[in-house]
Amino acid sequence: MKVYGDVVSGNCLKVQYTADYLAIAYEWIPIDIQQQESRSDEFLALNPAGQVPLIVLPDGRTLAQSNAIIGFLAAGSALLPGDPYDLAKVNEWLFWEQYSHEPYVAVCRFAMKYLGKSAEEREPWRVERGEIALDHLENALQTTQWLASASFTIADIALLAYTRLAAEGGFNLAARPQVRAWIERCEGQLDIKRADDTS
Amino acid sequence: MKVYGDVVSGNCLKVQYTADYLAIAYEWIPIDIQQQESRSDEFLALNPAGQVPLIVLPDGRTLAQSNAIIGFLAAGSALLPGDPYDLAKVNEWLFWEQYSHEPYVAVCRFAMKYLGKSAEEREPWRVERGEIALDHLENALQTTQWLASASFTIADIALLAYTRLAAEGGFNLAARPQVRAWIERCEGQLDIKRADDTS
Repeated sequence: MKVYGDVVSGNCLKVQYTADYLAIAYEWIPIDIQQQESRSDEFLALNPAGQVPLIVLPDGRTLAQSNAIIGFLAAGSALLPGDPYDLAKVNEWLFWEQYSHEPYVAVCRFAMKYLGKSAEEREPWRVERGEIALDHLENALQTTQWLASASFTIADIALLAYTRLAAEGGFNLAARPQVRAWIERCEGQLDIKRADDTS
Repeated sequence: MKVYGDVVSGNCLKVQYTADYLAIAYEWIPIDIQQQESRSDEFLALNPAGQVPLIVLPDGRTLAQSNAIIGFLAAGSALLPGDPYDLAKVNEWLFWEQYSHEPYVAVCRFAMKYLGKSAEEREPWRVERGEIALDHLENALQTTQWLASASFTIADIALLAYTRLAAEGGFNLAARPQVRAWIERCEGQLDIKRADDTS
């Protein structure tokens, strides 16, 4: 399997985290988003939507959308419940992440870390919705160790990707102890704390 | 099953379309978004995210997020492929819909139809991305009858919901014949053309 991705993107890191956790072998093909490499003719031939991450299977079939990819990789593993309702709750979190969390938490981070904006220059409506998303996570984690199930799933991986980097988008997790404790649990599962410490 | 929804929302209509197609019985509980009924204490107790649609199963368990709901309802039916890769391609379209289509096509429609804005008053960046999304659909449909698979799936239902109402958001489908033909095919599958003609 080939993974086309950019390590500055939490969406791409989800695929790395999931494949590494499941010991799925892959070749990482770096695509530099900021250099518009996801809009090159070569890449658009693979994914007309012009988005990373993208995986290409050994037989040439392609799959895009981070949360669809990690669901595909996790099928049949402990990262994805077999019970239809439990599986649906994982998907509930995955769709919430893409609609109500990533466009705010991740986009603010991109503005600050890669476009050089200050926290004050972030779009106020995105900041407000990002704060709401993080509060929603804090509330959900009051009563559970993992977001969607009694065990660690791809819902945790999907939400972890940008939540652990929220400070880079000007969000403060100090008053969100449940989120911070859950991040540590997830990082422990994925063994990624150390890599982050050196970044 | 109870479905909490608002018929002004395409996201809610996806649930109606899917349940009706599969002849799943449900009670529709109207929630008026514009009257902030999805933010009432009573509703937030059911869905802390404050979003419709929401389903409540006979045993009281809840499920939110339109695309997670229709995936749950369609499990084991012809609307959802059994093959893992084909299923992942359905999910690819579902996530693309929520990230790259709905925030533009549906939000522009809401601004015009429910907030009283003119086409010129739409946010330009949303218009631009909505046009790109509709072009992406047109291109995808050049070579296939249905979006994700050889047969009609929930990917078609999810994309249909707001694409068929794109004109209400100021988008012109006249130059997108494949999209128009696909809308007709989908409406035929769902038998919803007539309801729309009277709206």
